[in-house]
Parts: sequence; C-alpha cells; structure tokens
Amino acid sequence: MADPKILQVFPNPAPGRDYVIEHTHHEFTSMCPITGHPDFGSISVRYVAGAKCVELKSLKLYFHAFRNEGIFFEAVTNKICDDLGKLLGPRSLTVTSDWKGRGGVTSVITASWKPGAGRRR
Amino acid sequence: MADPKILQVFPNPAPGRDYVIEHTHHEFTSMCPITGHPDFGSISVRYVAGAKCVELKSLKLYFHAFRNEGIFFEAVTNKICDDLGKLLGPRSLTVTSDWKGRGGVTSVITASWKPGAGRRR
Amino acid sequence: MADPKILQVFPNPAPGRDYVIEHTHHEFTSMCPITGHPDFGSISVRYVAGAKCVELKSLKLYFHAFRNEGIFFEAVTNKICDDLGKLLGPRSLTVTSDWKGRGGVTSVITASWKPGAGRRR
Amino acid sequence: MADPKILQVFPNPAPGRDYVIEHTHHEFTSMCPITGHPDFGSISVRYVAGAKCVELKSLKLYFHAFRNEGIFFEAVTNKICDDLGKLLGPRSLTVTSDWKGRGGVTSVITASWKPGAGRRR
Amino acid sequence: MADPKILQVFPNPAPGRDYVIEHTHHEFTSMCPITGHPDFGSISVRYVAGAKCVELKSLKLYFHAFRNEGIFFEAVTNKICDDLGKLLGPRSLTVTSDWKGRGGVTSVITASWKPGAGRRR
Amino acid sequence: MADPKILQVFPNPAPGRDYVIEHTHHEFTSMCPITGHPDFGSISVRYVAGAKCVELKSLKLYFHAFRNEGIFFEAVTNKICDDLGKLLGPRSLTVTSDWKGRGGVTSVITASWKPGAGRRR
Amino acid sequence: MADPKILQVFPNPAPGRDYVIEHTHHEFTSMCPITGHPDFGSISVRYVAGAKCVELKSLKLYFHAFRNEGIFFEAVTNKICDDLGKLLGPRSLTVTSDWKGRGGVTSVITASWKPGAGRRR
Amino acid sequence: MADPKILQVFPNPAPGRDYVIEHTHHEFTSMCPITGHPDFGSISVRYVAGAKCVELKSLKLYFHAFRNEGIFFEAVTNKICDDLGKLLGPRSLTVTSDWKGRGGVTSVITASWKPGAGRRR
Amino acid sequence: MADPKILQVFPNPAPGRDYVIEHTHHEFTSMCPITGHPDFGSISVRYVAGAKCVELKSLKLYFHAFRNEGIFFEAVTNKICDDLGKLLGPRSLTVTSDWKGRGGVTSVITASWKPGAGRRR
Amino acid sequence: MADPKILQVFPNPAPGRDYVIEHTHHEFTSMCPITGHPDFGSISVRYVAGAKCVELKSLKLYFHAFRNEGIFFEAVTNKICDDLGKLLGPRSLTVTSDWKGRGGVTSVITASWKPGAGRRR
Repeated sequence: MADPKILQVFPNPAPGRDYVIEHTHHEFTSMCPITGHPDFGSISVRYVAGAKCVELKSLKLYFHAFRNEGIFFEAVTNKICDDLGKLLGPRSLTVTSDWKGRGGVTSVITASWKPGAGRRR
Repeated sequence: MADPKILQVFPNPAPGRDYVIEHTHHEFTSMCPITGHPDFGSISVRYVAGAKCVELKSLKLYFHAFRNEGIFFEAVTNKICDDLGKLLGPRSLTVTSDWKGRGGVTSVITASWKPGAGRRR
Repeated sequence: MADPKILQVFPNPAPGRDYVIEHTHHEFTSMCPITGHPDFGSISVRYVAGAKCVELKSLKLYFHAFRNEGIFFEAVTNKICDDLGKLLGPRSLTVTSDWKGRGGVTSVITASWKPGAGRRR
Repeated sequence: MADPKILQVFPNPAPGRDYVIEHTHHEFTSMCPITGHPDFGSISVRYVAGAKCVELKSLKLYFHAFRNEGIFFEAVTNKICDDLGKLLGPRSLTVTSDWKGRGGVTSVITASWKPGAGRRR
Repeated sequence: MADPKILQVFPNPAPGRDYVIEHTHHEFTSMCPITGHPDFGSISVRYVAGAKCVELKSLKLYFHAFRNEGIFFEAVTNKICDDLGKLLGPRSLTVTSDWKGRGGVTSVITASWKPGAGRRR
Repeated sequence: MADPKILQVFPNPAPGRDYVIEHTHHEFTSMCPITGHPDFGSISVRYVAGAKCVELKSLKLYFHAFRNEGIFFEAVTNKICDDLGKLLGPRSLTVTSDWKGRGGVTSVITASWKPGAGRRR
Repeated sequence: MADPKILQVFPNPAPGRDYVIEHTHHEFTSMCPITGHPDFGSISVRYVAGAKCVELKSLKLYFHAFRNEGIFFEAVTNKICDDLGKLLGPRSLTVTSDWKGRGGVTSVITASWKPGAGRRR
Repeated sequence: MADPKILQVFPNPAPGRDYVIEHTHHEFTSMCPITGHPDFGSISVRYVAGAKCVELKSLKLYFHAFRNEGIFFEAVTNKICDDLGKLLGPRSLTVTSDWKGRGGVTSVITASWKPGAGRRR
Repeated sequence: MADPKILQVFPNPAPGRDYVIEHTHHEFTSMCPITGHPDFGSISVRYVAGAKCVELKSLKLYFHAFRNEGIFFEAVTNKICDDLGKLLGPRSLTVTSDWKGRGGVTSVITASWKPGAGRRR
Repeated sequence: MADPKILQVFPNPAPGRDYVIEHTHHEFTSMCPITGHPDFGSISVRYVAGAKCVELKSLKLYFHAFRNEGIFFEAVTNKICDDLGKLLGPRSLTVTSDWKGRGGVTSVITASWKPGAGRRR
C-alpha cells in the first residue's frame, strides 16, 4: 500500500491567511482488488493549510505508488484523506476521486477530513 | 420489473465519516409503457452511506434489468430511489434520471429518499 | 392563442415525496407580434408535483400550438407559467424561456408560479 | 455619449409576479479613451421589472450608440446601470460587461443598481 | 521580485456603489525556484474597489515582471494579493492562480485579502 | 409551397473571380407531410456566383415561407437546389440540409445543382 | 435477427441527380453474443439513391429490432450494409457503426456496399 | 473606404522556401450599407509570401479602418483580397470572411487572388 | 515485454469486402525507460482485415501488459504495429499512439504496417 | 539566440518504415523584437525520421531557450525548421507555430524543410 512517508511538507508561506490550495492529479491509476483490471481517474486534494503545505512532487510520487495496488474506490479516497489529514493537520481538507467509466458507469467519491473520524481499519 | 434482490452490498469502509459516493450509469434504457418505444438516459445515484455501500457491478446488473420494462420516467426514478433507500438505509440518498430528447423534449427527474415517503403503489 | 385545454394530467406516482420534474422543449417557436418574424428558443418547466403531473406528449402539443402566434417573450413565459400553475396546482413551479439571438441579442425570462400572482390581463 | 433617450419602455405584462428578465448583447463595441483602439465584449442586463420593461430593439440601438465612444470598462458598465435604473425603476437590476482579451487580459465588471448610488460624475 | 511600484491606480468612477471588477491574465509565466523550469498559468484578480481602481496596462506589466522570477505557486499568489491589497485598500479582494499541468498535476490557489493578514516573510 | 419569386438577386461584384459564397440558415423549420409534426434543421447554400448573387434578406424570407409546408427532407433539399440553380445560373451550387433528431435519428441531405437534372415531379 | 422486411421504401424524388442522403441513429443497442451485456453506439447510413429511398420510420424500427440480439460489431455492420444494399440497389452506400467504450476501448466499423461482396455466413 | 496605404510590408525572411502565413482578425466589424446596422465577423488572410510579408500591426489598423464603412460581405472580402494581392505579389493568397448570425443566418465568403482577376469596379 | 501470444483472432465475417475496423484504447499506460515515470495515452488500431480479425478482449489484455514496461513512444508504436501485422496479415494496418502532455509537450506517433519493414531490433 | 547544440538525437528504432512522429510544445514563449512584449503560442514538429530521432527532453530545453529572445513569428518558425532539418536529415519535416491573439489577431505559420532552402540571413 502506498506509504504516506513518501509525502513531504514545507512551511505554509502565509499562515496568517486562510487561503485555499487545490492540486489535481489527472493520471491516477490503481487496480480493481477483485478482477485485477486497471482503474483510471483523477484525484483532487483541496485544503486550507495550517502550519504545513504538502510538497507537490512528493504528492505526485505518493499517487504513483498506488499504480499496482488493488484497492476499492471508496477505500483509496478515504486512505488519501486520512494520510494527508494526519500529515498536514489542515484547517480543512477535502479529497475527491473521479473515476472513468467501466461498462458505462462513472463514479465520484468525496471525503472531508476531521480529526478522529475515518476508516474502520 | 427489475428485482432489487439483484443488488448486493458491502460494509462501508469509513463509517465514522460522512462522505459522498456517486455512481452514474450513462447507458440506461427502458421502454415507454404506452408506445413500446425505447427510452435512453443516464441514472445518477448519490448517497452518504450508513453501514452499507452498494456493490458497483450488482448496481449495473440491476440497471440492465430495466431494459425491456415499460415504465414512466417519474416511476422508474422513484422505484430506484425506494429500492436503494430500503437496501442501504443511507444517511442521505438522491437519484437523478436524465433522459435524451424525443421529439425535441428532454427530461430530468430528481428524487431524494426519506424513510416512510415514496411511491403510492 | 395556445389553448391550455390541450394539456393532460396523470396522478403523481409518488405524492408522499417532494421530488423535482423538469421537461425542456428545445424546439419552441413563436412569432414576433410586431414584425411577424419567427422567434426560436427553448422552454423549461421545472416543478414539484402535488396530486397531478403533466403528460409529456400533451405538453409538447401545447408548445406546438404557439407556432403561429404573435407573442412577446415576457408574455409567453408568464402565460405558460399561469396555464401550468392553474392546471397542476404544484408545490412549486418555475418556467424558463431561453431565446436565440436576433441581431446579436439573446434573452432569458424566468417566472415562478404562486397562486394569485400573474399576468395583468 | 449614448443618449438614454434612445431607450423605450412598455408596461410589465405580469406586474403581480417577481420574475427575471435577462437580455445579453453579444456584439458590444466601444473605444479605448486612451489609445482609440476598439474594445469588444458582451453586456448582460438582468432585472426584475417594476411597472416597466425595456423594449428590446431600443436597447440594441442604445448599445450601438457606444460604437465610437471612448469610455473605460468600469465607466460604461456603471453608466448603463444608471441609465436603465433611472428609466425602469426596477425591483432589482444587475449589469455585467464581459470584455475580450487584449494582450492576454480579459475583464468582467458587474454592477447592481440601487437608488441614490452610482457614478461620481 | 516584481516591484509593486509598477502598479498604477485611477479614482473609482462609482465610489457610491459596491460593484465587482475582475481582471484575468491568461498568459502568466514564472519559474520554478527549484528546477528553473518555466511555469504557466492564469491569474484572476477580483475586487470591490474602495477609492482606487488598478490601471489595466500597469497590471499587465506588473504580471510580466514575474517572467524570470523563481517563485512557488503559493507564494506568488499571496504576494499578488498583498501587493494589490496594500495598493488599493479594496472593500474586498480575491486572487486566484490556476496552473497548467506538469506531470499530470494542475493546481489552483485562491487567497483573499484582509488587512493585517498575509505572508510570513 | 415556398415561391421562388420571393428571392431577389444583385450583380456579382467580382465576376472575374471564382470565389465561394456560403449562407447558412440555422433556424429552418417545416412540417412532416405525414404526421404534421414540425421539423427543425439548418440549410446551407454554398455557391460560386456567375453574373448574379442572391440577396440575403430575400433568402431568409424564402426559407421562412416553408414554415407551414408539409414536405419531406429529400424533397425540400432538392427544391431549394432547383430554385436557386434556376435563379442564379451559378458556376456551382450545393445545398445541404441538416435535421435535428427525432426519436434519436438525425439526417443530412446534400444536393448539387446541374442544369437539366433535378426532381422528378 | 432483425428482419429486413421491416424496411420500407419510397421512390427517389430526384432520380436525375446524384445527391447524398445520410441518416444517423444515435441510440442503437444490441447485445454482446458472448457475455450478454448490452452494447451501445450509433449507426450512420450514407447513400446515393438509385430508384428507391429508405423510409425513415421503418429504418428506425429495423434498428430497434436488434435490441435483444447477440451480435458482434463487425457482423452487425456488415448485415446492415447487406440488407440495405439488397433493398435499395443504391448508386453507393456506406454504413458506419461507432461503439461506446467498454473497459476503455471504443470501436468504429465502416463498410461499403458493392453487389456480390459481403458476409461469409 | 479603408485605404490600402495603411498597410506596411517587410522583406520575407525565408524567400527560398514556400511556407504559409495565416493571420486571423477575430474582431472585424463594418456596417451594412443598406440598414446601417453593424456587422461582426472574422477575417483570415492566408498566403505564401513572395518577396514581401505584411506587417501585422498595420494589417490590424487596416482592418480597423472598415469600422464605419457601409459595405457588403461579398465586396469587403474581394476588396481585402485585391488590396493584399496588389501589395504583396504573393505566390498564393486566400481571404476568408466568416460573419456572425443576423436573424439566424451566418455567412462565409472565400476569395483567392490571381493577377488580373477581381472586382468589377 | 508484452507478449503478442496474448492476442487472439477470429475469422473475418465478411472476407469478400474491404471494410475498416478501428479499435481505440483510451487508457494505455507504460513507463518511461529512463526516468521510470508513468506515461499515459491512447492507442488506435485501424485495419482492413484479411482472413482474420483481432478479438477485442485479448487486444485489451495485450495493451494492459505494457503497464509496467519501460519503453519509448516510438518503440511501443512500432512494436504494436509489428505484432498485429504479423498476427493478422491485414490488407492494411495503421497504429497511432497519442500521448498526454509532460512538461507541456504532447506527442503523436503513426506507423503503418508493410511486410518486411519494421523495427531494427 | 537558442543554440541548436542543445538538441540531442537517438537512432531511429524503425528505420525500415516511413512513420510519422509529431511533438507539440504547448507553452512556447518568446519576445516581440519591437515592443519587448511576450508572445505565447504552441510549436508542432512533425517529421518522418531518417537515421535519427530528436530526443524529447532536449527538444523542450531548446524551446525554453527562446524565452527571452526577441524574434518575429515568421523568423522563429523558419529557424526551428532549419535547425531540426540540419540536425536530423529527415525524410520530411514540417514545423507549425500557432500564436495566441494580441489585439484580436491570431497567427499560424507553417514551414516545411527541404535541403538548401531556408532563411535569407
């Protein structure tokens, strides 16, 4: 599973201001845990930074690390939300995954971070 | 009529978080109950899961089961809303059907689930 | 003038639920009452049904009945709103007309129904 | 400067209803007051009528009258807003001008009318 | 670093009205401070003027002055917000930067001005 | 049936050059001769003028004259081609009609003029 | 299998002219002969008529007759080409089928009719 | 009438190569010679230079000079073709004007230059 | 390297006709052989079948087999062309790969098959 | 001026086949030699390789080297064509530059390489 230790941070250059940062990775790919077929989509990370910002290149490498992982749409979205929430301690954070069609069905999953909430595992 | 027993569920992987799941089937087709002509459209299901999520492939097969059913736009939208509401017990659920033009008229029907509300029949 | 008696209704199949029905006629045409030139546009009807829904084919024929009528944009929008409001007794109703350009000017008129309000005539 | 006397009105056909009228002129052109170069854009007028509606053809001719006027984006938007506000006495009125790029910069100016507010001059 | 002294102002022509001015520069380019590679994007400035408006040509030249500067997305957005906020004393001001993809990732940064908030440096 | 006498001509201003003139009417409407339902589409006329050009406003009125005629797609295309061919004596002429969908089917008919060819009737 | 006897013809109204007729059915659906899953696409028929034209409503019903047939993309395209070629005896005829994606793959099959050529079966 | 003396030239930097230069002015405007209403469109000039290229800014000013001229679509296209042909002596030259809709009709005029051909006047 | 033995064939159902089959895989991904970064693009295969057609599901699995291969754009395009050419013995075959941008550069490679031509390795 | 020595090559992997390679740089920027204002556009290089292919990253750096050069549209297009022609000795080569609008005018320059032809300087 993609290791959140790949992610790096830098100090927020404007900590006195609540401003919004959004990074969208348009070439996310992982694998279906049942069939082993590849899934494709985009992942958007939208947050108001506290003390820390996520470094963009490390975020891209973290996303690349899902390439050969078998993981459901719902689970990967919540994992990214949890990993970034714990790393950044943001004032707010929303992760959206938008999946290309497979058999005529597209999916969008949107999760927002709050401390103490999260995945069951 | 499409049997809701086709639908399968799996446990919500992040029950501690209110997050949004949206599946859109772009190739829905059923029949006009009056003329027997085929209708085409897309169906979007958008919900915040409680304990259960709907399994994606079974959702697709459930939609396929309407292929040769004669049913009005308003009725099919409410039936899908009722079937998924009863199955999932979601925190919230909205079903939208968006129908291609016939004689220059397009239609969109949007229904949200609440326990005890629903179709008259 | 298009006679609202053309319009037919059927019983709302889900009267226990406030759900939204929207029909858009993309090929509306009437005449300018001053110049006699044809006007083209689309008409959207968006409502929450009470006891009755408007039957789709009769709605289309009602719209066709404006084909050779000379009527202003503002007037036709309010007339459709009045005719459907009186017919359906809806929980809410909005009619939008969106007119193609003529000499580089497009127009959009949006009227919502409430009992007792309406056109001066 | 374009004379608001060009504008003509007709009685609101549905004075008992607050409904929205929007006219968009897609081929507006005036001149830069500094360089003399032509500016191009669109002007949208969106209002809820009181007793009066603006007649569409006269509105177009009023817009044409700016063709050879040197006037800034901010000023022309506020002038149109003032002229129409004074003429119509609307329940509400918003004027938006959307200007094509010049050296890679586009501009949008949005002004709403209220009695007693307006341009300094 | 781009000098805010490049920016020029003119008196707000309608100081009695809260209206919105938005300028978007579609051809912004700066340099990545780490790799030296060029970055490309657009910058939108949206504000309600107080006593002063920013002159459009000087705004463009101010943006051009970033052409060979090495600066992060987050920092350039906050700097522009600070420079314009101090210059204009606006009633409100929001700056949005929208960056083209690099390795499949696009970014959008949105900062709003308030007196006394801002960058740490 | 639309009378070709509506059409007016003016002398070709550049008879020494073979250049192409194309007029497209985007709001053509006629009636289905069987069902009486309205048909909508666009008509393009593309020609190299001989001695005469067709006057644009008269062309528009000629197209308007089909508004309440019952006529098949194939027939109206050939009639327009014949009428303009006989009127203009062009060096070349092609008429294309492009019809909006009805029950999910769109149609395009393309006919070129040559003296002595044409409709059977 | 869809019976070509559904198709009806009418006499070509302009037999003295080689002109092109193109009908596109945007809502074609058949079944995969292996998996039984529905396929969706559009079918274009483009021909120069000889003595006969295909009647549009019968063509639509002929396409509807494939709704529950299991047939490969290549085979259905060639069958339609053969059926229409034999029926119409056209001066030329091309049939194109354009299939929506399934697992990220779209397909287009294009076949032209000539007497004596065709499917092996 | 726009004076071709506005146009300036510079020497072709690659006279040994037949390469194509295309300039498109997207904001062309002139007047209808009959009604006095403004016309809007775009003008494309596509040529293979001989010894001379047209200077871009002078071309723009030449186009601006039509702003208040009353001139037909066919005539303005041929005049620009003639003016540039005589000025540049190009290996080839095509001028296309593409006019926005007026009453639902758009027009495109395309003229190519050859020595000795041209407008009748 | 992706093994062409994954590919399966079926007999051409219309061998007496030269018709065109085009399959486009929109979710192709491989790796850069230098940096190890993922590449994304689409692959189109367009051919006129001889005796054999390629089976669609096996083609998709063959494309999936490149997922973790390091291979240049030029090489993968030629390999697919060679593999399919040898397998199918087509009357004609063209393979096009269309690669998403990386640092602002997109690429398209197009190779056509002929017996005896091909990659050097 | 951008030094062609930046460009690197690798051996054509399929020299026995005439196949087409196209690279498009979407973020090209240089300076106007007269005004010093930045120009923005895209550059496409389309060629059939002889013995050598251009390495993609070096091509990007070569394009970056024009960032602060003052050079006309016509000249930069011909220089790139010459530099790549001399470097690659291609079987064919076409360079297209497509420039964003400035004052409402866009430009496209297209040059093809042949030995011995080229810029005068």
